[in-house]
Amino acid sequence: MQKNNRQFRLAARPFGLPKRTDWAVTDIPVSEPGEGQLLAEVMYISLDPAMRGWMDDRKSYLPPLAIGEVMRAGAVGKVIASKNARFREGDYVYGSLGVQQYAVSDGKGLTKVDATLMPLTKYLGVLGIAGLTAYFGLLDICSPKAGETLVVSGAAGAVGEITAQIGKIKGCRVVGIAGGPEKCQYLADTLGLDAVIDYKNENVRKALKAACPNGIDIYFDNVGGEILNEVLAQINFKARISLCGAISQYNATEMPKGLSNYGSLIINRAKMEGFIVFDYAARYMEAIGELAGWMSQGKLHTREHIEEGIDHFPEVFLKLFSGENHGKLILKV
Amino acid sequence: MQKNNRQFRLAARPFGLPKRTDWAVTDIPVSEPGEGQLLAEVMYISLDPAMRGWMDDRKSYLPPLAIGEVMRAGAVGKVIASKNARFREGDYVYGSLGVQQYAVSDGKGLTKVDATLMPLTKYLGVLGIAGLTAYFGLLDICSPKAGETLVVSGAAGAVGEITAQIGKIKGCRVVGIAGGPEKCQYLADTLGLDAVIDYKNENVRKALKAACPNGIDIYFDNVGGEILNEVLAQINFKARISLCGAISQYNATEMPKGLSNYGSLIINRAKMEGFIVFDYAARYMEAIGELAGWMSQGKLHTREHIEEGIDHFPEVFLKLFSGENHGKLILKV
Repeated sequence: MQKNNRQFRLAARPFGLPKRTDWAVTDIPVSEPGEGQLLAEVMYISLDPAMRGWMDDRKSYLPPLAIGEVMRAGAVGKVIASKNARFREGDYVYGSLGVQQYAVSDGKGLTKVDATLMPLTKYLGVLGIAGLTAYFGLLDICSPKAGETLVVSGAAGAVGEITAQIGKIKGCRVVGIAGGPEKCQYLADTLGLDAVIDYKNENVRKALKAACPNGIDIYFDNVGGEILNEVLAQINFKARISLCGAISQYNATEMPKGLSNYGSLIINRAKMEGFIVFDYAARYMEAIGELAGWMSQGKLHTREHIEEGIDHFPEVFLKLFSGENHGKLILKV
Repeated sequence: MQKNNRQFRLAARPFGLPKRTDWAVTDIPVSEPGEGQLLAEVMYISLDPAMRGWMDDRKSYLPPLAIGEVMRAGAVGKVIASKNARFREGDYVYGSLGVQQYAVSDGKGLTKVDATLMPLTKYLGVLGIAGLTAYFGLLDICSPKAGETLVVSGAAGAVGEITAQIGKIKGCRVVGIAGGPEKCQYLADTLGLDAVIDYKNENVRKALKAACPNGIDIYFDNVGGEILNEVLAQINFKARISLCGAISQYNATEMPKGLSNYGSLIINRAKMEGFIVFDYAARYMEAIGELAGWMSQGKLHTREHIEEGIDHFPEVFLKLFSGENHGKLILKV
């Protein structure tokens, strides 16, 4: 009996927050892999803020999804049939498998992962894009030095929590910004950050002043918008701002207010630099080695927020934007 | 008979464009230099956009001027009396002598300049702060490579015209933005830029698209605000933006709209970095050597806009903001 493949395909360009009808759910028969291809059963799908950007018809670092395409997503899967010499039945793989139950692939961009070393979901988080993003975005763009003050926004998110802990490992005074008391308590108690700011319940400008008595040397920005603008006003001489993302802006339906405090970059001879983790592919192994080392030393604590059932994809995805997720958000298929 | 020293002292913090009454004109007797001091007759005063910022009571890279202080300004003067071992009567000096006819100094921060090598006014322009600013702000922050597209705003100003020509020397396609047909013609015909944009008479977004068919690799920003925002939307992968100044903002009386397109820095892995030329003091000689070399090879053309009479200081200074100056604006005392 032929298996059914449930897929979420882009049906419409979202205006603001995506809604269920922006995707079409299609059920098609699972296809056999052709010559050079493999068939993978998708097990865990990584849900990331960047996916929102891919839904827009806008020039970016990856081509926009076309209407009708399977929703793009990183995922871990298990090879269940292979006519590709690099992969065998039973292999676990990570790659852009998409929001669907089964994926056919020519193997390009797929990496084998070892289920005996680490739970598979870790390859979506600390040993995957989240960990690599934190690693290169902090270390390569900002060169943190012991004693410097590092502020991380979205600090209880998948990338933020890792960034904050790498900052601690490097000897920084680390200040985490997150939304709500539960996340802030996690950052202070479990991760041991030096100060936390609950942006939903505090005045960020005043809280930054209190939390950063020596000013801000490094800012790792996951949220953009108003918080970035407030940080700009409080940076130090030769400060470095790493632009990782701008989740506060991804669903904006009107032109954002913009950064009025950017002149602070001149006065302070500071830089603000964007990066995309994919550019560091040649150095992934170096980073994964260090991240795994820190994990084994108990220096990297990460949370996973796993929800189950591909049918719930739209609602689970939206938790990223309401801030309901705690740590790495994953959809178990 | 004792000489009189006419001085412009800060009398009030300007709101928006400075007006004559923001300075008090005081006449005091010229004082004799004390032990270790020298007395200089101020000959040429450099008028720079940065002077506007010094009038505000705001934390910056130099302390704000106090009310009652002589207006801060770089200038070239002639030593007419000296009790300082480093300087002799007849020496020409460059330094922060202020908007006044005579200055007493302990010699700190003063540099001797050679009137036989170069007209004295050049030490305020191409071999002074303007040239050094262009040199380090372009070469150190942006590392231009042959074939890249460089856009310079304020391109007919003292810093801009030098920046644009260094870009040409380095083999870039150089696009200059300036206000009005006269300046644009100068940029195209005399400096030989590859394209010019008259921001007062053209739609900057469309003009940038036409002038930069391969996008923008480097932007040297003298003006900030809307033009910077338009450039952000058209930058290339790994673009570099050097923030030199933001003359469009210095007299703003309300919060500027801010940069809404900064997200382009992420998508393009681009950086935006501020600098202050004073940080490069240890490397001034290297830069002056190269700038003088390019001048002697006829590769650096600069314009001076010299007005005469210290009494006209307020009106002449304001020409910077109306854009009436062509090249380096200098007040001959």
